[in-house]
Amino acid sequence: MIKIGIVGYGNLGRGVECAVHHSQDMELAGVFTRRNPETVKTHTDVPVYDMEKLYDMQGDIDVLVLCGGSANDLPKQTVELAQYFNVVDSFDTHAKIPEHFSNVNQSSEKGKHISIISVGWDPGLFSLNRLYGQAILPNGNDYTFWGKGVSQGHSDAIRRIAGVKDARQYTIPVDAALESVRNGENPTLTTREKHTRECFVVAEDGADLKVIEETIKTMPNYFADYDTTVHFISEEELMRDHQGIPHGGVVLRSGTTGFDYENKHVIEYKLTLDSNPEFTSSVLVAYARAAYRMHQEGQCGCKTVFDIAPAYLHVESGEELRKKLL
Amino acid sequence: MIKIGIVGYGNLGRGVECAVHHSQDMELAGVFTRRNPETVKTHTDVPVYDMEKLYDMQGDIDVLVLCGGSANDLPKQTVELAQYFNVVDSFDTHAKIPEHFSNVNQSSEKGKHISIISVGWDPGLFSLNRLYGQAILPNGNDYTFWGKGVSQGHSDAIRRIAGVKDARQYTIPVDAALESVRNGENPTLTTREKHTRECFVVAEDGADLKVIEETIKTMPNYFADYDTTVHFISEEELMRDHQGIPHGGVVLRSGTTGFDYENKHVIEYKLTLDSNPEFTSSVLVAYARAAYRMHQEGQCGCKTVFDIAPAYLHVESGEELRKKLL
Repeated sequence: MIKIGIVGYGNLGRGVECAVHHSQDMELAGVFTRRNPETVKTHTDVPVYDMEKLYDMQGDIDVLVLCGGSANDLPKQTVELAQYFNVVDSFDTHAKIPEHFSNVNQSSEKGKHISIISVGWDPGLFSLNRLYGQAILPNGNDYTFWGKGVSQGHSDAIRRIAGVKDARQYTIPVDAALESVRNGENPTLTTREKHTRECFVVAEDGADLKVIEETIKTMPNYFADYDTTVHFISEEELMRDHQGIPHGGVVLRSGTTGFDYENKHVIEYKLTLDSNPEFTSSVLVAYARAAYRMHQEGQCGCKTVFDIAPAYLHVESGEELRKKLL
Repeated sequence: MIKIGIVGYGNLGRGVECAVHHSQDMELAGVFTRRNPETVKTHTDVPVYDMEKLYDMQGDIDVLVLCGGSANDLPKQTVELAQYFNVVDSFDTHAKIPEHFSNVNQSSEKGKHISIISVGWDPGLFSLNRLYGQAILPNGNDYTFWGKGVSQGHSDAIRRIAGVKDARQYTIPVDAALESVRNGENPTLTTREKHTRECFVVAEDGADLKVIEETIKTMPNYFADYDTTVHFISEEELMRDHQGIPHGGVVLRSGTTGFDYENKHVIEYKLTLDSNPEFTSSVLVAYARAAYRMHQEGQCGCKTVFDIAPAYLHVESGEELRKKLL
């Protein structure tokens, strides 16, 4: 059994607990938190420890799955822990990945451990599909659409507006744009042409709804460049209809082959997810299996999804995989 | 530059010639044939040699791409050549892959070369997506649909019927079945519920069309288990409307997460291809790049798409890939 430790117990940490719980080759060594461990109750009675306890438990943990945030937690946490443990994180600040990779790699090599960063679906599975698509169809274009799904960042931005009690924002791909790409038309698409934004807002009593709507629709970066719809709903409706965290999206590679580039091909990879954090956790846990196996083989250093042979992710042997899945 | 040799010059061989021609890091060393080389004319004036010449040219070839058939050519050819060259093949007889793997592996290890077998889209990219899907969503179901596309085997079966001059058969996924899977309904589907077959037949003068249609529709294995449509058309129409070799298909993984498996997720991978052989060739050429690089690192033995880290396929460096695609 591969012994997994979870660092941080929010939505992602709970998702990892669940995925490991359902895995036939893994078990949980513990959840590690910066909060008071006594205030944290896990779903399957996994013991909860203070972060400091981690270093005493090195022998009890094969891989640590880091479930903190990319803005403040992971840039420090992954680097610190990679020296002492095999680690997997979901660092998703695209622009800072090269820097994070370099820092984590140094730390992993010092401790002769394996680290895998930026695991999830974007970055992660979507990145993989961008790579496979470009490698196979070098003459072509990449397209990524997100949604339909909840954007936490955009929901938070609405909540910060005066007079707003709560809000939920959905990012939605524009059907016409998707269809054009699927038809191999290789359109050049503006931000507005790719996605629309739909907002469900609970206003405080007596708030000026016109002002709130205008503030949302003209907010720079978040909404100004999009066609945005605002619905005012009651708190009850928000609780009843908008508690899930669905997400998803599509990566497409549209390319041509032939001596005169006369033949079109479209590769489409689409995710439709009821729970964004649980799906992301499931990807993290599959890559934790890979980290364990690569470390067993004596490998070390920082890796990304690009560096992991797919067979490392699956519980079955190479022989079984060739027989059943190839 | 990676020096590529092509063995066999049919649709697939021509596709490889084209893909290498468009590659910035590859060049062609030659085409090798069992026919009289003087009768074979390549599209880009690549020299054509007799198969026997291969062994004199070991130093001029980094990777051989084997473009023969799975039924008669590859089981012998890949095994023989794997001892002397890095090789990539598209062996696609699913049931015989374990045996082929074992034979090729022995040969590659003897010669300290890399071989990659069963490369293409099914087996190949579809297999990869079955593996990733199962690894990430272990609780779920796999679905594979083929088409819309030309099935060479089914077209040949029709051509063997008395009174048939020529024919083209299209395999078509049933929309209702696809939609049910996309909705996460996890249907159990019979052969008839998954695909229909559409046949375009040119009959000989005076042939009994009723008999031909009945013979097609009741043909065991090929058509009896499907809803089949037969259209009789003129030779001109066949030449005008059915000369392409389009294909494609969809792999889906429908699974659940959550402590009570309460959240559904669907992963869909879809290919829409104007030219089946040119797309397959493009996959072969990307894996030829991987074979070259892995051999440069000192690796040897037989591999499949499951064993190849994605970064080996792409012309750019790991650093560039992390920056641009992750």
